[in-house]
Amino acid sequence: MAESLLQAQYQARIKEVLATTIARLTPLAPTLRAAMEYGLLRGGKRVRPLLVYASGELLSQSGASCNTAALDAAAAAIECIHAYSLIHDDLPAMDDDDLRRGEPTVHKAFDEATAILAGDALQALAFELLSQANLGLTPARQLRMIQELSLACGYQGMCGGQALDIQYEGQSIERAALEELHRHKTGALIVAAVRLGALCVEDMQEAHLSALSQYAHAIGLAFQVQDDILDITADTQTLGKTQGKDIMQQKSTYPALLGLDGARQLAEQLLAQALAALADIPYSTQTLEAFAHYIVKRDF
Amino acid sequence: MAESLLQAQYQARIKEVLATTIARLTPLAPTLRAAMEYGLLRGGKRVRPLLVYASGELLSQSGASCNTAALDAAAAAIECIHAYSLIHDDLPAMDDDDLRRGEPTVHKAFDEATAILAGDALQALAFELLSQANLGLTPARQLRMIQELSLACGYQGMCGGQALDIQYEGQSIERAALEELHRHKTGALIVAAVRLGALCVEDMQEAHLSALSQYAHAIGLAFQVQDDILDITADTQTLGKTQGKDIMQQKSTYPALLGLDGARQLAEQLLAQALAALADIPYSTQTLEAFAHYIVKRDF
Repeated sequence: MAESLLQAQYQARIKEVLATTIARLTPLAPTLRAAMEYGLLRGGKRVRPLLVYASGELLSQSGASCNTAALDAAAAAIECIHAYSLIHDDLPAMDDDDLRRGEPTVHKAFDEATAILAGDALQALAFELLSQANLGLTPARQLRMIQELSLACGYQGMCGGQALDIQYEGQSIERAALEELHRHKTGALIVAAVRLGALCVEDMQEAHLSALSQYAHAIGLAFQVQDDILDITADTQTLGKTQGKDIMQQKSTYPALLGLDGARQLAEQLLAQALAALADIPYSTQTLEAFAHYIVKRDF
Repeated sequence: MAESLLQAQYQARIKEVLATTIARLTPLAPTLRAAMEYGLLRGGKRVRPLLVYASGELLSQSGASCNTAALDAAAAAIECIHAYSLIHDDLPAMDDDDLRRGEPTVHKAFDEATAILAGDALQALAFELLSQANLGLTPARQLRMIQELSLACGYQGMCGGQALDIQYEGQSIERAALEELHRHKTGALIVAAVRLGALCVEDMQEAHLSALSQYAHAIGLAFQVQDDILDITADTQTLGKTQGKDIMQQKSTYPALLGLDGARQLAEQLLAQALAALADIPYSTQTLEAFAHYIVKRDF
C-alpha cells in the first residue's frame, strides 16, 4: 500500500471529524474559535489520527464491532493535543516560528494572547471529546483513555519532553538522554495514539495493546531518526551543508551521535523492531506495517 | 463563622493534597516541576477548593459517606486549572504582570517558555487527577466530572471568557456583555467547583446540584462586583483616585456602569440570590452561607 493511499484513507475522515468538532462550538468568542480552527484544520500529515484508526480497525478483526464514534473522538482528541502543542511550540518564547507548513503560525495569523488561549482551549477540548456520553464505550474504558492521554501529554509525557528540549538547548547530550527527550516530547503521544485506538475496541487483549505500544515506540523514534537524517540530506542538496559540519557543531542528532550510516542502521533496526512487535498480533497488520515502512523510507 | 476560620478549615488540607500531588511527579524535568509547584503552591485564598469541600460535605448530610479521596482530587483538579490560568494570564502577551501576591510571577521566577509549559502541564494534571482509578466513585460519575470541568475551563468557559476580555479591551461595554464576560472568565470555574464537590456524593440529587449552581453563579458574580468596588475604594484611600474618574474613563466595571451605590446594591442582591438558592437544600448550609457573606462584605 503506497503511503499516499494510506494517508488519503484517513485524512478525509479526520478532517471531517475535526471540522464538525469546531462547528459544534457556540459563537461566544469568534476570534478564539477561528484561531482554534486555524491551528487544528490546516494541513499536517495526520499521522496520529491514522494510528488511532489503524490500530482500532486492526483489533476489530477479532470480530468485535468497530466503534466508529469512539475512534473518531479518540483521533480528534489526539489531534487537538498535537495541534495545541504546535501552537504553543511556535510561540516567540518557545521556538519563535513565523511559518508552519509555509503558512503563518497561529500567533502570526492572530496574536500571541489568542494563540496561547487557542492552545489552552484545544487541550480542554481533547478531554471533552473523550468524556462524551455517547461513544458506545463503558465509562470505565473512557476513564482509562482519559488517564492515558493526560499522562501522555502532561509532565510525565509531552510537556516534560518539551522541558528537556529547552534544558538541553545548545548542549551536546548522550544518546540515552536524546532518546529520553524524544520518547517524551513526541513518542508519548504517538504511543497514546495506538493505545487509544486499541482501547476503542472494548474486548481488546492487553497483550495486543502491549505489542502495539512497542510498535509505536519504535516508529516514534524511527520518525525522529529519519527526521535527523533528512535534515542533513536535504541540507546537502539544497544548502551544500555537509554531514561533517553538523557533527562538528555537536548538534544533538542521531547522525551527530552515530554518523549518517549509523543513524540509517538505527532507523532500519527500529523498523525491524516495529514489524516484530506487530508479528505478535494474530490479525492482518498490513496498514501498520506499510506505515512503518513509510516512516523510515520517506524522503521528504 | 468568621471567614478566617472558614478558610483555615480547608487551606491546610488543600495545601497538603497539592504538595502530595507534586511530590508524586517523577524527577524527569526538575525545572518544569519546580515551576508547576511554584505556581500551584504559593499563596492564594483557595476559594475554589473551599467550595468543592463545603459543597461535598453539605450534601453528605443526607447520610451518604463523605468521599474524602474524591473531594481531594476534585479540589486539587480545580486548583490546578485555576493556577494554570493565572500563570498564562500573567504572561507578557496577556496581562504582563511581574508580581502576583507580592512575589514574582512564574515567568519572572523561571522564564516564559517554562511558564507556558507549566500551565499546560497543570491543565493535563487536573484531568489526570479526576481520572484516577481509586477515587471511590463510579466511572460514570468521574466521567461526568471530567466533562463538566473540560467545558468549564475550555472554549465554552474560562478560555472563552478570557478571549472576550481581550476582545473588549479599551472598549466600554454594556452590562449584559460584562456579565457574560465574568460568567465565563471566572464564573464557570466557580460553578464547576461546587458542582464537582456535589458530584463526589454519589447519590446527590439533581435539584440540589442545580441549587448549588445557582448559589455559585451568584457568588461568582458578587465576587467580581465587590472586586470592582474595592478597586475604587482602595484607590480612594491609597491613591486619592475618585469614583468619578473611573466612570469618566469608561472602564467597564460595575461601579462605572451602575455607580458605586448601584454596584453595592447589586452585590447585596446577588448575596440574597445566593442565600435563597441555599434555602432549597434541606441540610445545614452554614459554611456556604458564611462564605457568601464573606464574598460581599470583605474589604481586601
